[in-house]
Amino acid sequence: MRTHEAGTLRAEHAGQSVTLTGWVARRRDHGGVIFIDFRDASGVAQVVFREGEMAERAHRLRSEFVVKVVGDVTRRPEGSENADLPTGAIEVYASELEVLNESAPLPFQLDEHLEVGEEARLRHRYLDLRRTGPAKALRLRSEANRIAREVLHAEDFVEVETPTLTRSTPEGARDFVVPARLRPGSWYALPQSPQLFKQLLMVGGLERYYQIARCYRDEDFRADRQPEFTQLDIEMSFVDQDDVIALSEKIIGALWKNLAGHDLDGPIRRISYADAIAKYGSDKPDLRFGLELTELTSYFKDTPFRVFQAPYVGAVVMPGGADQPRRTLDAWQEWAKQRGSKGLAYVLVAEDGTLGGPVAKNLSDAEREGLAKAVGANPGDCVFFGAGDPDSARALLGAARVEIAHRVGLIEEGSWSFVWVVDFPMFEAVDKIGDDVAVGSGKWTALHHAFTSPTPEWIDRLDESPGEALAYAYDIVCNGNEIGGGSIRIHRADVQRKVFEIMGLGAEEAQEKFGFLLEAFKYGAPPHGGIAFGWDRIAMLIGGYDSIREVIAFPKSGGGFDPLTSAPAPITALQRKEAGVDAKPAEKQTADK
Amino acid sequence: MRTHEAGTLRAEHAGQSVTLTGWVARRRDHGGVIFIDFRDASGVAQVVFREGEMAERAHRLRSEFVVKVVGDVTRRPEGSENADLPTGAIEVYASELEVLNESAPLPFQLDEHLEVGEEARLRHRYLDLRRTGPAKALRLRSEANRIAREVLHAEDFVEVETPTLTRSTPEGARDFVVPARLRPGSWYALPQSPQLFKQLLMVGGLERYYQIARCYRDEDFRADRQPEFTQLDIEMSFVDQDDVIALSEKIIGALWKNLAGHDLDGPIRRISYADAIAKYGSDKPDLRFGLELTELTSYFKDTPFRVFQAPYVGAVVMPGGADQPRRTLDAWQEWAKQRGSKGLAYVLVAEDGTLGGPVAKNLSDAEREGLAKAVGANPGDCVFFGAGDPDSARALLGAARVEIAHRVGLIEEGSWSFVWVVDFPMFEAVDKIGDDVAVGSGKWTALHHAFTSPTPEWIDRLDESPGEALAYAYDIVCNGNEIGGGSIRIHRADVQRKVFEIMGLGAEEAQEKFGFLLEAFKYGAPPHGGIAFGWDRIAMLIGGYDSIREVIAFPKSGGGFDPLTSAPAPITALQRKEAGVDAKPAEKQTADK
Repeated sequence: MRTHEAGTLRAEHAGQSVTLTGWVARRRDHGGVIFIDFRDASGVAQVVFREGEMAERAHRLRSEFVVKVVGDVTRRPEGSENADLPTGAIEVYASELEVLNESAPLPFQLDEHLEVGEEARLRHRYLDLRRTGPAKALRLRSEANRIAREVLHAEDFVEVETPTLTRSTPEGARDFVVPARLRPGSWYALPQSPQLFKQLLMVGGLERYYQIARCYRDEDFRADRQPEFTQLDIEMSFVDQDDVIALSEKIIGALWKNLAGHDLDGPIRRISYADAIAKYGSDKPDLRFGLELTELTSYFKDTPFRVFQAPYVGAVVMPGGADQPRRTLDAWQEWAKQRGSKGLAYVLVAEDGTLGGPVAKNLSDAEREGLAKAVGANPGDCVFFGAGDPDSARALLGAARVEIAHRVGLIEEGSWSFVWVVDFPMFEAVDKIGDDVAVGSGKWTALHHAFTSPTPEWIDRLDESPGEALAYAYDIVCNGNEIGGGSIRIHRADVQRKVFEIMGLGAEEAQEKFGFLLEAFKYGAPPHGGIAFGWDRIAMLIGGYDSIREVIAFPKSGGGFDPLTSAPAPITALQRKEAGVDAKPAEKQTADK
Repeated sequence: MRTHEAGTLRAEHAGQSVTLTGWVARRRDHGGVIFIDFRDASGVAQVVFREGEMAERAHRLRSEFVVKVVGDVTRRPEGSENADLPTGAIEVYASELEVLNESAPLPFQLDEHLEVGEEARLRHRYLDLRRTGPAKALRLRSEANRIAREVLHAEDFVEVETPTLTRSTPEGARDFVVPARLRPGSWYALPQSPQLFKQLLMVGGLERYYQIARCYRDEDFRADRQPEFTQLDIEMSFVDQDDVIALSEKIIGALWKNLAGHDLDGPIRRISYADAIAKYGSDKPDLRFGLELTELTSYFKDTPFRVFQAPYVGAVVMPGGADQPRRTLDAWQEWAKQRGSKGLAYVLVAEDGTLGGPVAKNLSDAEREGLAKAVGANPGDCVFFGAGDPDSARALLGAARVEIAHRVGLIEEGSWSFVWVVDFPMFEAVDKIGDDVAVGSGKWTALHHAFTSPTPEWIDRLDESPGEALAYAYDIVCNGNEIGGGSIRIHRADVQRKVFEIMGLGAEEAQEKFGFLLEAFKYGAPPHGGIAFGWDRIAMLIGGYDSIREVIAFPKSGGGFDPLTSAPAPITALQRKEAGVDAKPAEKQTADK
């Protein structure tokens, strides 16, 4: 329908007649002449309707009318070029105008600089996507797909689609379930990930698999989660952890180089889970800044201060924090309470080195004396403390560390920091997992998932001390966000059974839930491992967005509701009946032939 | 873990020490020496364990054991090369052997030439995929994805993921539904296609969209259907039918050239729906052979033969069919009855030109005289007739035409024939659609779908004669299989409303079901159109397979049952309660904030 895309017109097109199709972004009338900002997917160009017939015809144009314009590209008069616009050197003098579709007045203006509520944006997402920012987000994501696939193709990976109407794949969340009309009373589950199928592909000898896969988790939509999300899912055979990490770095490197102009400069550093927790109070540490935690448990082992008579005491320093007004220091207490702590103990290091704040006077002289040195604080700094059970105290200090970095401005704009967290524990105590759904009824549950291999040192002695056993698992963290995680998998049926046993999944239950996997492991399963990247989050980070909703074409808002289509919605009694929702399942499942 | 892939070893590797990882495909003992066919994803190589210690260690190897072998590549002795094997010039003399995993005896042998029942293959799909054929099918499909994406990327298409937990998109089949735990009593629907979302992306100004999209239709699994299937889904703005067809031909051309070694040689021919039905009795005609139907309605307008006193009489010729024995001709009657016809009338043209068979004597002399010429039959041919209502008579003749081609051997092995079927009717009578689910309660339903635009000549006079109105729709047919279909869409709310009206979808119901689409059309929707390719079927055809199940990694068998995981399965009472399956929906749906 058109000869050119508006956003591609340049001075060298001057003198050419062009046909454009697109939208009226804005109309301006100047003494009988009408100018429109003409927009298509490629960008914006100025179209001019001369005084007289053309201007009269253009008079009815309103914002977001769809038009076809024939016109001549002309250099703008000297002095009226617009350097901010790629097409700013030219304008198009219209000789023909056809209105292809009209537009009612918009529910919100498509101005870049206008804040629009998210509910309105999502309800009219098709208008929101006409804005430069949201359109760019989708294009960026498409490019990310392409770049990752190119790396994988060069490495001989095979793209395979795995089923989404399948069996429950318990990975810590609830399954979405789908009634099966042809087997009334039976249900499919939507996969939480392609985990089991990609392992089966490895048993099938495929050796190198990938998929940009839709995954489903029926979680309470805290924070920035979506009921359906996407991961770049990868699995390889005959590999160890280093092989998976090397491939992952090729992908991460290509993405950031091409989309963020950032070079990885060699291998990404690695840190053990234990070190990450000890130094940064987090298994996804943000390493764009330092501010390591200092453990003070032994420093305070004889302390007179009751609060510090705890299994763990640690501290983090806020540079220059000594001059925070009382009001701000009180606000820190509130901040800590919102995270479930009683408060956030602190001392202020005065310019003369003396310690201030309410905690200081509770300490012994010796403790006061050596404290600044022990934590690496300088005059003018503030020292925050965490005391209590190690997990929660470190988590609090880890969060304080990030908050400090933001407040003090330690994070360089546009900087990137990547780190692999390795040597994860194999299991965690069930009483710590919160809302997640435990697989099995044991005291321990898998920290990653039930198919993660113990490290070679632990593989044959898991029983001895499940809490200490290490997993062959690795997470990749970018700027404090987990952007991917994987593991070497169990490929021996006996090890898989042992892990299920420790998780309290009895032989019968394991057989019922994962019988097909255990069966597959009987027939020559190769050593294998893989990784899954959180694709929404990666696109969000590269694009510099605050929410994954910005990089999803049609995201759900709170509670899994789609303001655009109003899904989910009630179904009819007939649909319900046909779907067999209320049927009793048959006694025994057999295949129809 | 390895230095080389077994299937890549050639004569030039002779003298190198290699480490291989893979499977024992077969073990043969020859006078103390043990040979194994060693297989990995790249292929097979022969590994030799010399008499003595190595042979003793290799003795425990069984089929499908997973092993790591270190050895020296050696040229095979002159005369013992195996020309059938890419690695047939060499063998690897093992110096180290590590068993990485064992294998129990297999449920079926992985021999290429062994027929294995489909149920067993699917139940142990991970073993089936170790066979050359199935593994090749997955690789072919992966390549098809890559090739199509390359074409689309070169044409500036943006890949966008659309939601799969969404609202019903009625396109002729039942929806799978998913209870929404956070909105008890409300349900998501899995999309039958991304149709509505891709149109919204066009309204959103994206202009060029594609996605290799999972689609869901809850149909009775007749023939070769799967509850979830894949389409390459494409949508473009500011285009007409020729633009979509041109892009499609680039994709089809690239696929067949690269994967089947077949060149399209210029544009694919087009045929109108009316012609396809008249000449070939099908809207997906197989044009690898001729055998056009001849309409004889006026020829027989005064016939004395009661059967031919019908609204339609037509014929198709079976070359050389006159010498079919009576038994075979009786079998044709059975064949026709299985398709719901009373039988298949025929005449046999003897070598002297006289007509035989039971029908001949019922015809008038004049009819007998001119018949062979009228239908283009030669001495020795058989003429089959269809008489009755035009649709069923032509369908019968169309099926006979294909059957004849197979029996007579008119289809050249490995030949390809493509054709676009265009100028489809806009609507079809509801009483003809069989099992499909009609949208609306009118006499007419959309032949393609409710969003298909009428052609420009019909767009403003649909009312006049809905049964004659033509749609801006096109199907691409390959060897008699529909491999894709699309249309220019309605972009005007008034036209969309009119179509709904003709389909008997009242304003209120239309608003309830598609209110968001009608709303979107208010705000400057561009002219747009697209196409969706049946990706499973395309991979099947290119690979030369009989069933789409061969190109799906984990297909369902009959009734939507997965013999591997035994999905679908009953859910627990707790899952049922949590999912809110039995909750009453809230009176009014509003967004949670």
